[in-house]
Amino acid sequence: MHALWLEGRALGVRDDLPAPAAPPGEALVRVRVAGVCNTDLELVRGYYPYSGVPGHEFVGTVEQATGAPEWVGRRVAGEINAACGACSTCRAGRPTHCETRTVLGIVARNGAFATHLTLPIRNLHAVPDTLSDDVAVFTEPTAAALELQEQVPVAAADRVVVIGAGKLGHLVAQTLAVTGCRLLVVGRSPRPLALLSARGIATATADGIEPRAADLVVECTGHPDGLELARRAVRPRGTIVLKSTYHGKAQVDLARFVVDEITLVGSRCGPFAPALELLAAGRVDPRALVEARYPLADAVAAFDHAARPGALKILVDC
Amino acid sequence: MHALWLEGRALGVRDDLPAPAAPPGEALVRVRVAGVCNTDLELVRGYYPYSGVPGHEFVGTVEQATGAPEWVGRRVAGEINAACGACSTCRAGRPTHCETRTVLGIVARNGAFATHLTLPIRNLHAVPDTLSDDVAVFTEPTAAALELQEQVPVAAADRVVVIGAGKLGHLVAQTLAVTGCRLLVVGRSPRPLALLSARGIATATADGIEPRAADLVVECTGHPDGLELARRAVRPRGTIVLKSTYHGKAQVDLARFVVDEITLVGSRCGPFAPALELLAAGRVDPRALVEARYPLADAVAAFDHAARPGALKILVDC
Repeated sequence: MHALWLEGRALGVRDDLPAPAAPPGEALVRVRVAGVCNTDLELVRGYYPYSGVPGHEFVGTVEQATGAPEWVGRRVAGEINAACGACSTCRAGRPTHCETRTVLGIVARNGAFATHLTLPIRNLHAVPDTLSDDVAVFTEPTAAALELQEQVPVAAADRVVVIGAGKLGHLVAQTLAVTGCRLLVVGRSPRPLALLSARGIATATADGIEPRAADLVVECTGHPDGLELARRAVRPRGTIVLKSTYHGKAQVDLARFVVDEITLVGSRCGPFAPALELLAAGRVDPRALVEARYPLADAVAAFDHAARPGALKILVDC
Repeated sequence: MHALWLEGRALGVRDDLPAPAAPPGEALVRVRVAGVCNTDLELVRGYYPYSGVPGHEFVGTVEQATGAPEWVGRRVAGEINAACGACSTCRAGRPTHCETRTVLGIVARNGAFATHLTLPIRNLHAVPDTLSDDVAVFTEPTAAALELQEQVPVAAADRVVVIGAGKLGHLVAQTLAVTGCRLLVVGRSPRPLALLSARGIATATADGIEPRAADLVVECTGHPDGLELARRAVRPRGTIVLKSTYHGKAQVDLARFVVDEITLVGSRCGPFAPALELLAAGRVDPRALVEARYPLADAVAAFDHAARPGALKILVDC
């Protein structure tokens, strides 16, 4: 099959890979469209050790599903963590944290920048016919944005600040807007903020943050400075959710967290079913985020484009 | 009155201070016993700007309480945050975070290493006659230890690790033991661990931590290394409570908090009523923590003693 391949920090398109065979319980999926995420860029920068096909945001069509023929021909999105189902973490209901999991395009499992991938059948979610590929490919990052609402209750009366208006911050903001909370998105450059304004979401630059006033702050910048902005924005006994990761250690004034009794919540992968519902109902519409698309043969150029400062979503037609 | 006085980083006992007058709504309290807390030592080290009488752990007898004569002659402990009662933070039910609060012996209010102090009458809690002064003086730190249970639910099935077996870690451990949780206290030196073992609480050194297994970890070391130990001990989606503060910024690998979806909760002052109940019932017994006592005239020596590595609670008879 054709696929993008990462080895060390070298990225290249190959056509010499065998098409994967789906083991029992897994489906073979013909990838239609895949999206470039910042985590993919961090893999290329060598922040996490990974060799193989990157990519974990996709929409595809099931070609084989041994023992579950009803899936064949269906268009699907797929949860990216393949859990063992048997360990104490899985049995405690936290399969996305299974200690022996593989993760699509991230940990020991070839990913979505390829003509084909395999995933456990239980990871698949059928995509409604009304949803275009270019919207359905956002199911995974929309689910990740929704994860924080599984962790922290958000009420309509809450003052919520999102720090960062990039790909992730935009989806976090759209999913938070659904709650009716009093929402403000803080960003640096006018273009991504304008996309949010066009949807009726209030925006500002960092100067527009009211100090110590927000009940909830969501850090989506991918930069340690974002946490310091978040700390300034959050009220005593408020909550900061960390959605983005960054390499290395950050300098954190932990005494402030104690004195102000702030709660900090790390947040990663989220629930697919409500993400698909919001996308299908048009209550979250990510289409304005699509900045460019490339064929799989030009996937290296797609990554280069995605790495440009301020780049929004880059899609790859597989 | 006689009092210990901190000016810059100079500490000395003075006898030239006027006895305080209680403003309307406040009580004049004759201090009986006060305890030295690590926060007091940090004030002396200049980590926070404060000039005045330090001390916020005390038991005393009310001498005046204008408009509330029923308090006169009562033995009391006192909540240390004097809130305005009118700001949005107070009205939202978070008076310990009032932005214009004074704090006994910490922020703009003379404290407990003195013959007399004043506090709002609403801050006072009557001490049961059965409680000795040497136990009642632990009401404030016991309340602080209980604060985490106001913030994080603790169930009997939970695996809980306390990092640090000093003054604060000991009280946190005793208050957690009341919940019946599966508790382990991790410390460095045998003496404080032995005090906990004597109460039937399991102890270990850092080598005895099972990695990524604890539902809840409470950091009580007052040192950044404690947070790294806590992160190793906590399970994915587990919670770390920060009880101790330390000066300066800590290096924190925030990506681990995101990937493992860890929650970090800062925790400070707590509820006095349940603290007094646990102390009165003997379910929390801090007496073994008392290492030495000094008269007020020797309060500087008391601070020197408290600053020795591994020192437990030093009391001052006022």
